Amino acid sequence: MQVRSRVGRAVMGGIAHSPWEDVGGLFTRSARAGTAGLSGVFRWLADRHRNTRFTVERVPFSELGQWGFEAGTGNLVHSSGRFFSVEGVRHRDGNGPERFQPIIDQSEVGILVILVKEFDGVPYCLMQAKFEPGNVNTRQISPTVQATRSNFTAVHNGNPTPYVEYFRGTGRGRFLVDTLQSEQGSWFWHKRNRNIVVAVDEEVPLHEDFYWMSLHELRLLLREDNLVNMDTRTVMATMPMDPASAPEAVSDSSLVRSYRALSPESEPPALYSPAAIRSWLSRTRSMCEWRSRLIPLSEVRGWSRSPDEIFDDQAQDFRVIGVRVRAEGREVAEWRQPLLGTRGHGLSVFVAKPIDGVLHLLVRARPEPGLMGSVEMGPTVQVAPKADLEAELRGVPFAEHALTQDPRRVRYDTVLSEEGGRFHHAQNRYRVVLAGEELPVEVPDDYCWVTVGQLTRFLRHSHYLNIEARSLLACLHSLW
Amino acid sequence: MQVRSRVGRAVMGGIAHSPWEDVGGLFTRSARAGTAGLSGVFRWLADRHRNTRFTVERVPFSELGQWGFEAGTGNLVHSSGRFFSVEGVRHRDGNGPERFQPIIDQSEVGILVILVKEFDGVPYCLMQAKFEPGNVNTRQISPTVQATRSNFTAVHNGNPTPYVEYFRGTGRGRFLVDTLQSEQGSWFWHKRNRNIVVAVDEEVPLHEDFYWMSLHELRLLLREDNLVNMDTRTVMATMPMDPASAPEAVSDSSLVRSYRALSPESEPPALYSPAAIRSWLSRTRSMCEWRSRLIPLSEVRGWSRSPDEIFDDQAQDFRVIGVRVRAEGREVAEWRQPLLGTRGHGLSVFVAKPIDGVLHLLVRARPEPGLMGSVEMGPTVQVAPKADLEAELRGVPFAEHALTQDPRRVRYDTVLSEEGGRFHHAQNRYRVVLAGEELPVEVPDDYCWVTVGQLTRFLRHSHYLNIEARSLLACLHSLW
Repeated sequence: MQVRSRVGRAVMGGIAHSPWEDVGGLFTRSARAGTAGLSGVFRWLADRHRNTRFTVERVPFSELGQWGFEAGTGNLVHSSGRFFSVEGVRHRDGNGPERFQPIIDQSEVGILVILVKEFDGVPYCLMQAKFEPGNVNTRQISPTVQATRSNFTAVHNGNPTPYVEYFRGTGRGRFLVDTLQSEQGSWFWHKRNRNIVVAVDEEVPLHEDFYWMSLHELRLLLREDNLVNMDTRTVMATMPMDPASAPEAVSDSSLVRSYRALSPESEPPALYSPAAIRSWLSRTRSMCEWRSRLIPLSEVRGWSRSPDEIFDDQAQDFRVIGVRVRAEGREVAEWRQPLLGTRGHGLSVFVAKPIDGVLHLLVRARPEPGLMGSVEMGPTVQVAPKADLEAELRGVPFAEHALTQDPRRVRYDTVLSEEGGRFHHAQNRYRVVLAGEELPVEVPDDYCWVTVGQLTRFLRHSHYLNIEARSLLACLHSLW
Repeated sequence: MQVRSRVGRAVMGGIAHSPWEDVGGLFTRSARAGTAGLSGVFRWLADRHRNTRFTVERVPFSELGQWGFEAGTGNLVHSSGRFFSVEGVRHRDGNGPERFQPIIDQSEVGILVILVKEFDGVPYCLMQAKFEPGNVNTRQISPTVQATRSNFTAVHNGNPTPYVEYFRGTGRGRFLVDTLQSEQGSWFWHKRNRNIVVAVDEEVPLHEDFYWMSLHELRLLLREDNLVNMDTRTVMATMPMDPASAPEAVSDSSLVRSYRALSPESEPPALYSPAAIRSWLSRTRSMCEWRSRLIPLSEVRGWSRSPDEIFDDQAQDFRVIGVRVRAEGREVAEWRQPLLGTRGHGLSVFVAKPIDGVLHLLVRARPEPGLMGSVEMGPTVQVAPKADLEAELRGVPFAEHALTQDPRRVRYDTVLSEEGGRFHHAQNRYRVVLAGEELPVEVPDDYCWVTVGQLTRFLRHSHYLNIEARSLLACLHSLW
């Protein structure tokens, strides 16, 4: 890796961030996790690392090949008009000040598929060790298919995407999940991914870079820093928990059964009904005076462009940079593209609390400039990566709970990467912390207590949970 | 009414369009409907008509007061920056030609509330005889509350909106429905309404212009041309059918019970599961290459502006006009505003078919330029009002079924108005027609068979059914 970037600086002393080029360390941890299968996963990952050498170099915009700044708008676009573009967004809250920033506009819906198959009654997921140019550690565990329509229609002039035959058209598998979900509302304009889980019974050929791991193993791997990628996490969030699907008590079609079992009747009693939660969200959305609009990049105020990057004048927010990528293995590939690079890490935290003996999560109805419909449910505390995270956290409600160092309260605390195909070294610290009696059930209007089961059911539909909340939901599933 | 407009010309000989200034005719029909209560409704409407005299005059844009064309963009805006604006939209399907049109941009979420209360076990709705400047017939039956946030925050400098105390804040009623739904994707940019049904037990003061009518009566009134307004229909669509809620067999809290009863278990078997229908919609949405973008009105190609109107050069589509409105009664009010005026009527038809003894509707996954997320489920056949409707219908799939004149097949056939606060004389012919064996169950990829119960349940969530399909769903409820 020859990325000459200063981004990725660790903030907040507590973050245990070990880039896993040190695969040996992970072996140890997998042993601690008590699942023999994990060592196989790590051996496969290490082998994949040896297989291909990737070089990612920063280049000035003038060396981005077919990428360039469009006359008039100043948008950063590809000459084919496809893939994505970097444009501007203007937003304001009611009569508040106008705010500006660059934003990625990608109209194509991304396709994220995890293929599952039961071996001896245990559900396994076909995962990919996928390289992305923005990854801090070259390859991360990715869905079976992670692609856009362009990938299928040969705009890339690349190789055909493996396994598309299981979901394209009528498909050869049984669809367990198929839902459109949002991506980062602070960085993407109206971007959506199609999240698919497909179950197959037939023999599936194993291509290079792919590996069958059990759903249980995949969940355990979520406890590793920067290992399970964002696209895997959003699909995993749609995979509901079923006690019967744990490896100790598997049976035929346990995964299919776990989906069927996800009915309100089988749920513990929640503080609010689904109808009441939907009503709270409708009210919050209708009262939200947040407005945002896509504008030409050249009209974005408070940001500048150098030959190497687009950056905010306060040097607090993200940057848009250019990279040249080379992959050397049995074949040689090279391409150039823009990436959105972050300064420092972000933070996403669910504050949880048992209410009448049932675990509830505190969600916030959160407007973001790039979200279609402006407002989705997000974590209790969510701060996008910024140079000075502590300054960003000042005055944020429930921040003191979110940052607790009390080991009895911290149930999950891991640094995870965001999409390496668009973001350069973008990382968030994800936490689930348990609050005690000191946190009242009464919360401000834009917050609501919900159960894990309720959130998982909302994910059958679009526009309920933002990507940070969905990542945390996947993490929560790993704690069962 | 002194509207000097040529719009509203009836198309398609079969449309029985009688503007109901002739209230006497409705009395006769209400008698035919066999419900004594309807004559009371019509007496109340006739009385309201006598109460206030409304004058709507077309005026050139130069006489629109605080409305004017913004420098640079050419957008038609209010000097306060509120209410709405007329801007432009550019859209294209994949690599197809770019298309342009003006579009109404209204960021505020509309609030539509129907207050329901049971009298002697029968659910009644508190309805309003509301004037809107674009109505063909001055007043139509409207929800208890039909307002925007501006209405509450005195931007209009008008009177306070009655009955807001039943849903604002925590509210005094029980929320049966609370969901955000889209409006016309061909005329509105990302517009949403909050649809609310609130049940109350307490004594409710009856303000001028309001009337309690039973839900059954309200449904019967849907069979009248241009009587039940669009905002009423979208809220009614969320009110599920329950055989036990018919007046013949009412009991305590029958309305509340009908909502609880709306579970998949109580439903007849459908051709496809809700999960399969969601998957079909996800696939269709992800494969849709339709892209649309808000642009300045001055960049809309193929449209021109005269002192009086904005119009397309082919004179086929809608026009943007200006009106001066005067209301004279116990108080005098005057205002000016733009309206979107249509040429001719549109058409929205559900083709229905019993499959294994259960009634199914053929929905189409339909992209529209102004829809958030581009695609929602629409009627089998939907054509927006155009000067030459027959030309628009050429080549539209299932048009021959939709236009059948066979009285055994035509189950519903009524001309209904769209929102008179934004649209001038905009009317669609709504039909439900029954297809026979000649229509196969196999349909093209963008069509799907669904049941009435499935559609009603999808309406708990946003972004499933477009406004035309929701109007038809309300009409279907009236046929039980």
